[in-house]
Parts: sequence; structure tokens; C-alpha cells
Amino acid sequence: MPRSPAPFAEIWRGDIAESHHVGHAVICDATGDIVEAWGDPEAIILPRSSAKMIQAMPLVTSGAAEAAGLTSEQLALACASHEGAPIHIDRVAAWLSDRGLSEDDLRCGAQPTRDRALKIHNIKHDIPPNQLHNNCSGKHAGFLTLNQHLGGGPEYHETDHPVQRACLEIFEDLTGMTSPGYGIDGCSAPNFATSMHGMARAMARFASATEADVAGRAMIALREAMMAHPMLVAGEGRACTRLMQAATEPVAVKTGAEGYFTAILPERGFGIAVKCIDGATRGAECAIAALLVRLGAASADHPDVAAFLNPEIPNRRGVKTGEIRPAPGLLA
Amino acid sequence: MPRSPAPFAEIWRGDIAESHHVGHAVICDATGDIVEAWGDPEAIILPRSSAKMIQAMPLVTSGAAEAAGLTSEQLALACASHEGAPIHIDRVAAWLSDRGLSEDDLRCGAQPTRDRALKIHNIKHDIPPNQLHNNCSGKHAGFLTLNQHLGGGPEYHETDHPVQRACLEIFEDLTGMTSPGYGIDGCSAPNFATSMHGMARAMARFASATEADVAGRAMIALREAMMAHPMLVAGEGRACTRLMQAATEPVAVKTGAEGYFTAILPERGFGIAVKCIDGATRGAECAIAALLVRLGAASADHPDVAAFLNPEIPNRRGVKTGEIRPAPGLLA
Repeated sequence: MPRSPAPFAEIWRGDIAESHHVGHAVICDATGDIVEAWGDPEAIILPRSSAKMIQAMPLVTSGAAEAAGLTSEQLALACASHEGAPIHIDRVAAWLSDRGLSEDDLRCGAQPTRDRALKIHNIKHDIPPNQLHNNCSGKHAGFLTLNQHLGGGPEYHETDHPVQRACLEIFEDLTGMTSPGYGIDGCSAPNFATSMHGMARAMARFASATEADVAGRAMIALREAMMAHPMLVAGEGRACTRLMQAATEPVAVKTGAEGYFTAILPERGFGIAVKCIDGATRGAECAIAALLVRLGAASADHPDVAAFLNPEIPNRRGVKTGEIRPAPGLLA
Repeated sequence: MPRSPAPFAEIWRGDIAESHHVGHAVICDATGDIVEAWGDPEAIILPRSSAKMIQAMPLVTSGAAEAAGLTSEQLALACASHEGAPIHIDRVAAWLSDRGLSEDDLRCGAQPTRDRALKIHNIKHDIPPNQLHNNCSGKHAGFLTLNQHLGGGPEYHETDHPVQRACLEIFEDLTGMTSPGYGIDGCSAPNFATSMHGMARAMARFASATEADVAGRAMIALREAMMAHPMLVAGEGRACTRLMQAATEPVAVKTGAEGYFTAILPERGFGIAVKCIDGATRGAECAIAALLVRLGAASADHPDVAAFLNPEIPNRRGVKTGEIRPAPGLLA
């Protein structure tokens, strides 16, 4: 019988807990065994963008990244859900240009930038959103680079395309299970399903990777790229960026749509997967922050941790009216 | 022992139900008794903006509205969470001016307009958000009009101010219970707590009001104003507006922050209260649409109902990737 989701976070306003978030969370060790779990570790989920480091694996293991001379910054962008700020879109544009490609070759679709200054600039100058602004444009630049290496057709996002078949193969290897299905992601690429345990196991594989084989070296290269360039993985003010910067030990943190988070803790060989069952970002952010604090990998007092673990809720005049509180069962 | 929240909606992507919403819902009849309930009818909640028609009651029962010659449009705005479009802000500005007041007298705080054309216009012309754009500015114009009648001080939003004391008195009368507390709302006014049953009972009072007394006449005036001016209550594309326009019988529908909805069905004397426990608007919209369809007050096939009951989830290229489905237990 499936286990019910566990308390994640409470939304307090005055003396009233007005909303509640629940979810599933799993911490795995280097053996792939569960260290701790909340909710149902066998729940089937779509990891969405929190699986981007897995989707970037064939780019590296195939030799495509090395052949194209990709830098650590580009590997970070391949794993990113960036906010479409100039630091992101300029680098993705240069990457495509270096490969003899352009924004037209992307299949992720246009998305308005989430960088405030650029958004205002673009509105003032009637510049419409394009595919470079899409938070997945780095992942898609990676897909295109892999595709050049594989010699596939231009519709690299289709589920039966060699690029996506390579992604599925490594996804099933790292999660340690056959994927029970998939959904089409917001960026038009397939997003493969797995269990909560499978996703935490895959993250523990990243955390415990060694230089002994091609896959291990690829996992190390990708996790190190994420940790070296936290601003490229997300952007200013974003949870992934701030939590990676605030962590008291090396941690790679990655969000996914619909309340997903993963984390890789190389010093412990631990992997974490978090799913807020209602899909709320605020609930998932609170939960991943709580688990990092629980493990001693982040301090609850650090402002970049507190901003997600226990943020204030202001009214329109900037006065505190309430706060988000992590569920006691996650934190300690 | 409190009852667990009930299934409200499922978020499907491909063959995977990737997120789930649960909540409480109560339908009351003219006697205040529960006709049907899901989840916990005794759960304590903050109704947020879905209580605006209650907060507008003292404006009418005191005689302030009549003394100021308020129109049906102005009563609708007093109950509104509008999107700050020109049709809303121009009317609120004129109302304040008619009363010898101005935007400065509001205490709701500035909020960017959610009207797309106006938002772009304001950014292009460096016009900052002001308090008229706040979705609650009509409610606050009502508070100010009541305050002129009562002769209270300028800080009409404070919990011990005569305006808010009048709101609490009618709130407790209509909900049929002592309010167990309050939170400060996004617009700085107190938002009084009650139970799910209390909120549905208050809506049933509105639905079954008669001309026999001052309160009954006020409730009829307010619900009729909402139903006569659905565009003023919310705005283009908004759930309250579209559901009121699409309903197959007279219904007043009102949303509140953190996943709240109320509905008034005068032909049946029914009141509805809905709370999505995680605070998600999409979950609450799906639930209120499902209950209106269940009761036969709306058609599931109407595009303005389907847009909330069973909306498609597109990717960035506009292709359907999934959909929101109402929980079977709500719909039939």
C-alpha cells in the first residue's frame, strides 16, 4: 500500500496555519540504499528539470563535449534552469555560434526572461521572448552538441531520436530501474518517470562517482561544473544558486518544475530527491533547505538558507504578516 | 479528530499524475445545515478575499453606501479582487475623488497591475504601481466611505478601528460563530478566521437573504451587484468573471488568496466554501468549477468552465503536454 506524503511546510498568517504542503523525500547513500525517507519512496514521479544532470550525461560520456571543447561553464549551463539573464543567454548564444548553430536550431520554445532588468529592457524595446531566454536553452545546446556528434536529424527533442534514446539509457542505468513512462516537458523534450528512490539513487551515484570509468568521470565533471558556477545553474536570488553558495560543504542543488528538487553531496556520497506533492515551489524549497540543515550541510541561520527554510510573508506595504515554517519532522 | 482533506484535482503529464491537490469543501443550505462536505467542515481557515462581500456589509447596513449614493458598480468593486485594469482603477479613482479622497488615503499598498496591456504601458512609460492597481482598492474605497460615515481616524485598516470592528461583528453574525483569530491580509486589513462550515453558512445567508431587514437587503444588493458586473469583480480571463458569466443560473463567485473560493446560489439558497489545502489557485479553481457542475449550475462543456475544470497544460511551443483533472469525488 502506498505511504501517504509527509508534512513538508506550513504557511502561517498570524496565529493561523492557513496552508500546508506535504510530499515525498528520500536520502540515499553510495550503495543506493535509503538512509532516510519521508512519505512514499516508491511513488512514481517526473523529476522534470531536476534530472538535467542526467540528461547531460550522454553529452559527456559520448565524447561529444570533449570533441567540442566544452568548458565547465557550458556543462553547468547544460544542467541549468537559468533565469534568462544576460550571463545565461549570451553564453548559450556564443555556444551555438561556436557550433555553427543558431537560436533557430533550438526546439525548447520561447519563454520570457525572468531577469527583471532584462525583462523591462525587452518590453521597452519591443523585443519578444526567444528560445535563448528559455530556462532550458543550455540543456538544448547540449542536446544539439550531442546530436552533431551522433549525426541525428534536427528534431532532437523527439522521444525516439538518438539523443533522447541515449538519455533514457543512462537514466535507467543511474536510477537503477526501468522507467515506467514519460511526460513531455515544458521544453518539448521527454521527461522520464522513475520512483523517488530511483531519483535519490541516481543522485547518490553522482555523489559517489569515481574517476575509474567514463560514466564516473562524466558525473564528476557535471557535478563539479554545477558547484563551480552556481549563478549559471539558476541565477540571482534563485534557490539552487543561493543554497549552493550558502552550503557548508560542496553540494549540487537542482530544482524541477512541479515541486521537485535534487541534491548531490559528494563528501558523504549522498543523494537527495524531494517532491512536494502539490507541485508548489515554496514547499519544495522549504523541504530541500530543511534536509540540508538536517544533514548539517547548511546552517538554518544563513540568510540564503533562511530565505527558503523560513521566509517571511510580507503584505503589499512590506510588513510581515506571516511566514513559512518547515515541518518539524524534516528538520530534525 | 479532524478529517483529512479530500482529493480536489490531479495534474497529469503524459500517463503520469505528477501532482495532486486536496482540500476542504462545504455546501450549506438556507438553514445553515451542511448539504454535502468534503474533507473537514470544522477546519479553521482564513477566507481571505473570498470574504469581501462580508467585509462590504457594514458599508451598506450602516447607510453609508446610500448616503454616498454608491452605485451597483461601486458595490461590485467593494467585493472585488480586480486585476487593476483601466475599467477598475478609473472607477476607483473616480469614487475616491467623488468622496473628496485620493489614492493617498488608501492603506492597501501598491501592487503592479495584472492587466497585460496596462502593465506593458506602465513599464514603457516608467509609471510605478500605485495603490489603485491593488486588487483590493475597491474594498478599501468602501472602507474609506464607511469611515467617513462613522467618523473614524485615517488608519481604517487597523484591527481595533471602528471600520474593522464593524466588519468583525457582521462576520461573526453571518458565519454563526465566534471568530477564533485573524491574520493580516496582503492589503493590510485584518482577515478574520472561521471554519469551513462557518464560511459556507455565511454564503448561504447571502443566498437566502430576503428584503425583510436591513442585513437581508444589504446581502441582496451586494450579491446582485457582483452578478450584474462580473468584469468588475475580477477581470478578463479570471475565474470569478468567467464562471459567473458561464453559469446556467445566477451565481456569485469569489476567489481568495491561498486557494480559497466562495459561491452564492440564490435560486437554491445554497452557499459554497472551498479551500485547497496547499493554497494553489489552480486546485481551488478546479474544485469550485467541479462543484458548480455537480450542482447543475454550470456545464462542464462550456469553454469558460472547462478552462478551470479541465484545462490543458501546454509546453513552451503551445503543444498540449498534460491536463488538470477534477477529482471524481467532487464532480459527481
